[in-house]
Amino acid sequence: SKPLTLISGPCAIENEDMTLRIAEGLKKITTEVGCQLVFKASYDKANRTSVTSFRGPGMDEGLRILQRVKDEFELPVISDVHDVTQIAAAAEVLDIIQIPAFLSRQTDLLVAVGESGKVVNVKKGQFLAPWDMKHGINKITSTGNEKILLTERGASFGYNNLVTDMRSLVIMREMGYPVVFDATHSVQLPGGAGGSSGGQRQYVGALSRAAAATGIDGLFWEVHEDPDNALCDGPNSLPLAQVKGMLQQVLAIDAIFKQDSEA
Amino acid sequence: SKPLTLISGPCAIENEDMTLRIAEGLKKITTEVGCQLVFKASYDKANRTSVTSFRGPGMDEGLRILQRVKDEFELPVISDVHDVTQIAAAAEVLDIIQIPAFLSRQTDLLVAVGESGKVVNVKKGQFLAPWDMKHGINKITSTGNEKILLTERGASFGYNNLVTDMRSLVIMREMGYPVVFDATHSVQLPGGAGGSSGGQRQYVGALSRAAAATGIDGLFWEVHEDPDNALCDGPNSLPLAQVKGMLQQVLAIDAIFKQDSEA
Amino acid sequence: SKPLTLISGPCAIENEDMTLRIAEGLKKITTEVGCQLVFKASYDKANRTSVTSFRGPGMDEGLRILQRVKDEFELPVISDVHDVTQIAAAAEVLDIIQIPAFLSRQTDLLVAVGESGKVVNVKKGQFLAPWDMKHGINKITSTGNEKILLTERGASFGYNNLVTDMRSLVIMREMGYPVVFDATHSVQLPGGAGGSSGGQRQYVGALSRAAAATGIDGLFWEVHEDPDNALCDGPNSLPLAQVKGMLQQVLAIDAIFKQDSEA
Amino acid sequence: SKPLTLISGPCAIENEDMTLRIAEGLKKITTEVGCQLVFKASYDKANRTSVTSFRGPGMDEGLRILQRVKDEFELPVISDVHDVTQIAAAAEVLDIIQIPAFLSRQTDLLVAVGESGKVVNVKKGQFLAPWDMKHGINKITSTGNEKILLTERGASFGYNNLVTDMRSLVIMREMGYPVVFDATHSVQLPGGAGGSSGGQRQYVGALSRAAAATGIDGLFWEVHEDPDNALCDGPNSLPLAQVKGMLQQVLAIDAIFKQDSEA
Repeated sequence: SKPLTLISGPCAIENEDMTLRIAEGLKKITTEVGCQLVFKASYDKANRTSVTSFRGPGMDEGLRILQRVKDEFELPVISDVHDVTQIAAAAEVLDIIQIPAFLSRQTDLLVAVGESGKVVNVKKGQFLAPWDMKHGINKITSTGNEKILLTERGASFGYNNLVTDMRSLVIMREMGYPVVFDATHSVQLPGGAGGSSGGQRQYVGALSRAAAATGIDGLFWEVHEDPDNALCDGPNSLPLAQVKGMLQQVLAIDAIFKQDSEA
Repeated sequence: SKPLTLISGPCAIENEDMTLRIAEGLKKITTEVGCQLVFKASYDKANRTSVTSFRGPGMDEGLRILQRVKDEFELPVISDVHDVTQIAAAAEVLDIIQIPAFLSRQTDLLVAVGESGKVVNVKKGQFLAPWDMKHGINKITSTGNEKILLTERGASFGYNNLVTDMRSLVIMREMGYPVVFDATHSVQLPGGAGGSSGGQRQYVGALSRAAAATGIDGLFWEVHEDPDNALCDGPNSLPLAQVKGMLQQVLAIDAIFKQDSEA
Repeated sequence: SKPLTLISGPCAIENEDMTLRIAEGLKKITTEVGCQLVFKASYDKANRTSVTSFRGPGMDEGLRILQRVKDEFELPVISDVHDVTQIAAAAEVLDIIQIPAFLSRQTDLLVAVGESGKVVNVKKGQFLAPWDMKHGINKITSTGNEKILLTERGASFGYNNLVTDMRSLVIMREMGYPVVFDATHSVQLPGGAGGSSGGQRQYVGALSRAAAATGIDGLFWEVHEDPDNALCDGPNSLPLAQVKGMLQQVLAIDAIFKQDSEA
Repeated sequence: SKPLTLISGPCAIENEDMTLRIAEGLKKITTEVGCQLVFKASYDKANRTSVTSFRGPGMDEGLRILQRVKDEFELPVISDVHDVTQIAAAAEVLDIIQIPAFLSRQTDLLVAVGESGKVVNVKKGQFLAPWDMKHGINKITSTGNEKILLTERGASFGYNNLVTDMRSLVIMREMGYPVVFDATHSVQLPGGAGGSSGGQRQYVGALSRAAAATGIDGLFWEVHEDPDNALCDGPNSLPLAQVKGMLQQVLAIDAIFKQDSEA
């Protein structure tokens, strides 16, 4: 069984240069530690807490930059779509199309992404039981597309807090699709910082190790060169400088799980 | 202070005749008991649990039927939109445009509905704290539109269950906008019935009375002539035959609250 | 069907004079508004957040003061016990013996209180589903004692917060025993004020009205002459001066529920 | 940093022979895999769901059997106390005295166990935020006793379910005391099996690995020779025959965490 894949990049495409530098940095790290990388960045943050929040460069410019990442670093890229009209253009560039958690029950969106023939990554809604992800899977497979990833990103736990139920990773893995743990969104405190979501970057390492020990196929980390000044999701993003050390530890745990459990 | 308004109708437009009969029945009841009625029915259920669930007649046919309800019974009508492309047509017919709970943080949708100039009813996401509804309000008022309703429909409480936090009604009312309690969706058990959401119709009366006693401006009930055979949301819909008795009790409580609290 | 009974008094017996004044004040109010009163005060707060919190005068002195309340104002009295050794003395004075919520599954305590022959008020643990109260009932009725009250006081909802699920009142009432809503503890924020529990006194009225509209047999309010300076549970206690107005409104709602539902 | 300690044994002392056999089996396994063992069994289950549930042999007989385990296998032993009157006798035999989760806020109990001078293991209440455990710690240290263990055993998550928040292990470890993860109680479904608590034994391995990867000092497993016929907590107990393999995997992860994080 192969090591987990890292899905990583900045929350949003803040500008072209930084996006390329982060991609280069992550490519170097994952090559050194020996795991695959899928580069992730959003071109439009469509559900920010506040109407005045930074949203990104828009779809056309964002896809152009993601294509540059693909070309220059030979990396697969993933990003999210928010309505059916975006899918055709997105599918031209993206290797994996991601369904945002809040939209994980929107039938038309799941079906249309399924019809694109691309790999589909469905983030589990904060309001969904893990076993109910089978309905989302069925919406996609109704199109004949079986290339599905399932992502855990925390469940609602009272107000302004999420909890990661590690049982969810086991339950979704038993559905037969690769499971990704989105560690940086799982430590968000939704609405917890007034006009934006707060976050608890200090728990990303612990939850990532825990997920690797539980058993996952992919790990999702938002990273930034300077998270405290990021335009999006700074409080829960990891500094690029910490990625290598944390990832090595996670991969060591991943190896133990996979050698013992899947031998 | 005037009595609460009933927002009611079938979950989905199953067919034209039944829709008209339910509108006629509700009009008769609300006239007799002395409260205003807004007729509600969905033309497309876009986030059903299962891909094979009944969705409705589609937008064009659905809006035509809702226009008939307006014309024949002189009733304002409300329905929900799921993406920006639907708003122009919907605004031609609807008096109130509703934002579904799962979409309550989609900035583009809130802004575009705000720009329609119509009254906007935002359903609070099951994953949202009541105080965080101010961000949704700001998205709409950024367009200059202040005609906003806020709807409580239950908060995630573990898996496959919702809980109604009555404090939420107080908190949202203090934001200065009319507050609606959606009693029939608040008793849903999301995903709780296998391939669809279960429901607990038996608690609609209790929660509706409780909400009226807490203080609300509107009450939302899905009704059907024969809920056990409804194509959508049957387990939580009320039989039309029970509406009058239940509504009278709610209105008596509403009157006590409003006479004492708002004198 | 008769009006709900008010169970009320200060959280703890702070001193004899104040206890008597509050009893006198509550007796006057409930006589005027026409409902029964059970006087409640604790002689020992055994599970305060902090080891340095005020606990009360102790059992012997506390029971002496409660006996004086009984004698001078002809009121039944209720208080809580924390272990089996306290029951014999408590049963000499108390009309109703209360099981604290955290102890609601302690078999020996429930059985021993049951054997006292007194009325037993079981507060539902914050960690218990309403339907699981039947097991606590069975522990008491195993002694032949059927004089049981069931009290809702909020359910755990994430960290440092409780939510009142009004369905719980319906579910417990269907078990055939009188149901009490403890409004002032239901608005506690456990641990939410650092070294003690915070509270949201501003929602006591709304939740009490909601519970009366749902249907209850008793209402539990902690009151104090000056809650901001109370030695226990001040943030969630009601000022004595507000009791009459709030109670009248609750009783008006209670009357509507009971006339319609139980005719 | 040394490997985690296993705290393990049957839920309840069902009979002397089986208790000794399980102790012998666990001693053999932990010696082979290289970790310390503390033997755990309860002599009285004081808060079973049902009044007719099996409770154990009682304190005197139970302590006698635990003394035999100590003597014959040279193992430290832990068990729980339920009221102040049990502490003196328990402290004669036990190396660690455990405070049950429901009783984790009972001031008198924490203080009296503190005064025994024994190591105190406080199980975090299902209703408690991890940061609020500092109040329980303060109750114990007020006696001068600093020998404290803190145990996570799941948090209330809606009705009849618990969730393990791995952040809790980090938060409690930062308080400066060893932290134990009680994996078998964390997979209980409280009240979920009708007259007793259900359980999800199938997740014990995943949650134990996750906790070891997060970072813990001790791991708590209820084991039984034949869990499906256990008189207590069978659904969440591990078969003795599976302990060695599962423990080896957990210890391999524990070693990675401790070599990297605590070097």
